[in-house]
Amino acid sequence: MVQKSTNITSVEHRVPRDVRWKANGHRGGILWFTGLSGSGKTTLAFELEKRLFDRGFQVYVLDGDNIRHGLSADLGFSPADRQENIRRIGEVAALFAGAGNITISAFISPYREDRRQARRAADDIFHEIYLNADVETCEKRDPKGLYKKARRGEIPDFTGISAPYEAPENPELIVDTRSRSVEQCVNDILGYVEQNFVPAKGR
Amino acid sequence: MVQKSTNITSVEHRVPRDVRWKANGHRGGILWFTGLSGSGKTTLAFELEKRLFDRGFQVYVLDGDNIRHGLSADLGFSPADRQENIRRIGEVAALFAGAGNITISAFISPYREDRRQARRAADDIFHEIYLNADVETCEKRDPKGLYKKARRGEIPDFTGISAPYEAPENPELIVDTRSRSVEQCVNDILGYVEQNFVPAKGR
Repeated sequence: MVQKSTNITSVEHRVPRDVRWKANGHRGGILWFTGLSGSGKTTLAFELEKRLFDRGFQVYVLDGDNIRHGLSADLGFSPADRQENIRRIGEVAALFAGAGNITISAFISPYREDRRQARRAADDIFHEIYLNADVETCEKRDPKGLYKKARRGEIPDFTGISAPYEAPENPELIVDTRSRSVEQCVNDILGYVEQNFVPAKGR
Repeated sequence: MVQKSTNITSVEHRVPRDVRWKANGHRGGILWFTGLSGSGKTTLAFELEKRLFDRGFQVYVLDGDNIRHGLSADLGFSPADRQENIRRIGEVAALFAGAGNITISAFISPYREDRRQARRAADDIFHEIYLNADVETCEKRDPKGLYKKARRGEIPDFTGISAPYEAPENPELIVDTRSRSVEQCVNDILGYVEQNFVPAKGR
């Protein structure tokens, strides 16, 4: 993207992120969930948020509910709008992480290039977590009835049915949400967070 | 704005904001600074952030540096782009506040209607703080050399010179940054925060 903004000067007095991290007792960063509709993104995001919050973490979920009704309310579901939606989420997630939060992003984000752009926005604190479940499994669950609508042709470009899902090639973590319980999946991710966001010696 | 997004379902398991506020020991909310270029927005925002951070608050500044290079990098300075920029900042500030942070927004935001829209995005936790200094004072300071450029005609639609600034009609707080020192101004705002963000009995 060409940056249009000019006459912007940088300021040096920001509280540095490592100072924020020390105060919070954990690093900030992005847990970028990606997976099909029905792969468990929302369920796992909110369960994980609750568990981390109860342990004293600064943690926040970005999902369709708080993004699509606000920041991205001007965007639809065309390929260009989806791309712009994911770009904005990547930027917002990077701000939250820089502010010291563990940000859980719960969007299908089907395209590798879009996820790569989100990673670039956050640099070294981006953790791609692939919630792996096949279309058949997700379609059986169909928690929002979207697969049914998609099969009836009521939703164009539906990921997994009429639009592609590009699985991550090198994610930081793969969670098998097809065969493992919610509890097991959450524990997998909690283990990952403990390893990667909490300093080795005390909190 | 017409909301284009459909097929979005709400989820009920989010950690409620009042539970976050209790854990942090203070409310979340938005300190929406508005004022001319040179009125002290950036200086006061970062000084206030440091002081609040040192007191243990979750606090974060949104400003040109972290917004214009990222989330709004696709926007220029046309009236429509400025409006969209402020809209996005209002939405992001509301997310941060909902996550428990005191969000300090440091943008000129010259139009009443744009600020009203930002207030609507955040509902009851939006605090408009007018950094009041006249154009002559700001132009004398000219910390970024922008007034000089504007006078030479190098910056079109420059607020206070060739574009209007609509002063707040009913702001939550007015800070006279023309005659008062940085220290005095910061203390004014700190007092306001203590009164409005900290529960009366202990933290």
